[in-house]
Amino acid sequence: MSARAGIVVTGTEVLTGRVSDRNGPWLADRLHELGVELALIVIVGDRPHDIQAALRFMADQRMDVVLTSGGLGPTADDLTAEVVGRFQGREMVLDEELQERIAAILAPLAKRWPNLDQAAIRAGNRKQATVPDGATVLAPVGTAPGLVVPPTNDRGPTIVVLPGPPRELQPMWAQALRQDALRTALKDTVDYRQRTLRLFGIPESEIAETLRVAERDGVALERLEVTTCLKRGEIEVVTRFEPAAQHAYEALLEVIRERHADTLFSEDGSSVDEQVAALLRGAGGDGAGGGSGGSRSIATAESCTGGLLAARLTEPAGASEYFNGAIVAYSNEAKMDQAGVPAELIEAHGAVSAEVAQALADGARSRLRADVGVGVTGIAGPGGGSEEKPVGLVWLSVATDPAAHLTRSVHLPGTRADVRDRATTVAMHLIRRALAA
Amino acid sequence: MSARAGIVVTGTEVLTGRVSDRNGPWLADRLHELGVELALIVIVGDRPHDIQAALRFMADQRMDVVLTSGGLGPTADDLTAEVVGRFQGREMVLDEELQERIAAILAPLAKRWPNLDQAAIRAGNRKQATVPDGATVLAPVGTAPGLVVPPTNDRGPTIVVLPGPPRELQPMWAQALRQDALRTALKDTVDYRQRTLRLFGIPESEIAETLRVAERDGVALERLEVTTCLKRGEIEVVTRFEPAAQHAYEALLEVIRERHADTLFSEDGSSVDEQVAALLRGAGGDGAGGGSGGSRSIATAESCTGGLLAARLTEPAGASEYFNGAIVAYSNEAKMDQAGVPAELIEAHGAVSAEVAQALADGARSRLRADVGVGVTGIAGPGGGSEEKPVGLVWLSVATDPAAHLTRSVHLPGTRADVRDRATTVAMHLIRRALAA
Repeated sequence: MSARAGIVVTGTEVLTGRVSDRNGPWLADRLHELGVELALIVIVGDRPHDIQAALRFMADQRMDVVLTSGGLGPTADDLTAEVVGRFQGREMVLDEELQERIAAILAPLAKRWPNLDQAAIRAGNRKQATVPDGATVLAPVGTAPGLVVPPTNDRGPTIVVLPGPPRELQPMWAQALRQDALRTALKDTVDYRQRTLRLFGIPESEIAETLRVAERDGVALERLEVTTCLKRGEIEVVTRFEPAAQHAYEALLEVIRERHADTLFSEDGSSVDEQVAALLRGAGGDGAGGGSGGSRSIATAESCTGGLLAARLTEPAGASEYFNGAIVAYSNEAKMDQAGVPAELIEAHGAVSAEVAQALADGARSRLRADVGVGVTGIAGPGGGSEEKPVGLVWLSVATDPAAHLTRSVHLPGTRADVRDRATTVAMHLIRRALAA
Repeated sequence: MSARAGIVVTGTEVLTGRVSDRNGPWLADRLHELGVELALIVIVGDRPHDIQAALRFMADQRMDVVLTSGGLGPTADDLTAEVVGRFQGREMVLDEELQERIAAILAPLAKRWPNLDQAAIRAGNRKQATVPDGATVLAPVGTAPGLVVPPTNDRGPTIVVLPGPPRELQPMWAQALRQDALRTALKDTVDYRQRTLRLFGIPESEIAETLRVAERDGVALERLEVTTCLKRGEIEVVTRFEPAAQHAYEALLEVIRERHADTLFSEDGSSVDEQVAALLRGAGGDGAGGGSGGSRSIATAESCTGGLLAARLTEPAGASEYFNGAIVAYSNEAKMDQAGVPAELIEAHGAVSAEVAQALADGARSRLRADVGVGVTGIAGPGGGSEEKPVGLVWLSVATDPAAHLTRSVHLPGTRADVRDRATTVAMHLIRRALAA
């Protein structure tokens, strides 16, 4: 039996969807690394009754540890510390040392924003320094302290109270793990392994069938927890198992390799983004591709993706080592002036065509002096489609040489945002194939 | 008393954060429009026990309606329909008409993916057509049917079972609302109003103080449900109230207008993105700005944001009417060749400087033949910072004329992704100011 954990995300702005929760997923990963099983996430508004009901639910589901995020701000609608204190049967007391510590953090703010109301700041300071008796205080990263609040009886969960902003929560979690109060609650942890495979270009039902085949062939699937999901057009297969089931995982992997050789692009969980970055750096891809070695620079010329492909390529730190630049050519003039697409090509074939995608790739390559050029042109919608060229049609081309292009078209379903996003994924896979060739 | 609703999001991939939930926020908005109070969201994995516990929790919290998303796929780990049926005390029965309907939907797949295993498809089809006795079936949008499953006693919640993919869930929700079984459960709805204000450039604590001032001045805050949050660098103030409290809201608005005239940029909930699009179209902004009328075209030249600003400007449908294109100039060569930044400027002031930001704005404007040019150059990190020019320093400039620039610098906190994202928000506000001037 491994320790079980639950997460309570508080905040009306999260519940109503005005802010999306980034803490749940991050904490899920951290718990997994510790071998702690995350069983439930509850999202509640800033109402004490609902927060308390969520804590009750977690306790009833026998969580060893409950993590809360949010509701630690200086304003009156931030109530988490108080509700958690009451739930654990602990009085709220002012921690004067903590109050001074927070005051010291706030002091420079007064300089930066000279017109702030000082009384407001002091009231917030006092509120944030009032904590449940017997709780362990986690030093503030922003202005809000975190808390580890043990149960007063022996059976309830230990509750870790963390702030909402991810950049405060994340360092504070590391701090929480060093506290005895939390270490005790997490003592029943099991060593789990997790492996991730990624495939591109087949429907999810094919993987379901592969699992049935594996079972029929005697793979001990009952020892593996396999989940599959479709994510930005790729299929992700995540398998979790105890170390003793390693051979069962390897048998499953063998079946998948055999049945999906063409589409299995990652055996180590690496994303296509990471593989493309590694290939451009000259470090080669994963086992699935080779890469011809040597670093290469890249540039894009994009129409319908409007800069999203460039943004995706420059997401990793250090992208400037291989990314030269991009041309976002929305208007036909920009395609001609900036990317050097001949006007005749656009006239003869239309802006969304194999020819223009290739010319964009060539233009990106030559104008931005890159080894590899990528061209993308399509109809993101909702308007602009025709019977011959419907919304969702995208032409992509990767040029590695003036004479060497990898060009293809796709017809992507969904909204404007879906088409734009999915087109960048198709482009990343096309780049990967061109680089690994 | 308005009807209360809860959402149960199922899926190990959502629980573990490998896929982020887009359905909860969307359904929250729809429930709000109906005057239904969303009280709780629970995210659980694909385990029957945990799904059932979540349904139990919702029933204990006296929800009138529970919506579930996900777990309707053809694979064996998709269990929602069965668990909901059991929870409501209903047998699972094969709906043969539905089975044929799904088979008809699947038929074209066989053409598109000729190598698919037909037995796998038939097994999935049968599973998806097995539904709780007495449930109302919602026609599939993809291959999965939805369900409205009423309680067998008079006190439990009505459960609406919806598929996970947003593009299937959204049209199906409209279908669900037409079913008597759901309309009955939602009869106790109250008319609520919601108003959203947006401010840019002050800390959240200032709004907390403004609320205290408003209360002191006699604004009936107890009749308003006000939540504030910080979102991509902006403060969003959302107020929800019954129609009879309209005057209280107007009194609060007056206080906020008075205290935050400089930073209140939206009184109607419109985003800065919408305002910039409207200004470029020549439709004017909201009450806060005027706009000089007449449509204008725009182009960007970006370094650290790597195309994100162009991607953001091209997000709205119809952006091609005013967006000409962009230059993503990551390397210094690209800044010089593509955006025409003089080499001497880079040498004299460095690539991250007011001068280069202005030259980028000029280059975007002239090279891409736009009325408005935007230049962004900064240090996104994590590397590349110095004492004089630290990570997070970004220079931005908007050129509306060769002689007219609005130029400023900011020092943004956070990770590389934070700096890139926040810089686009600052740029949008700078564009708004330049256009509204």
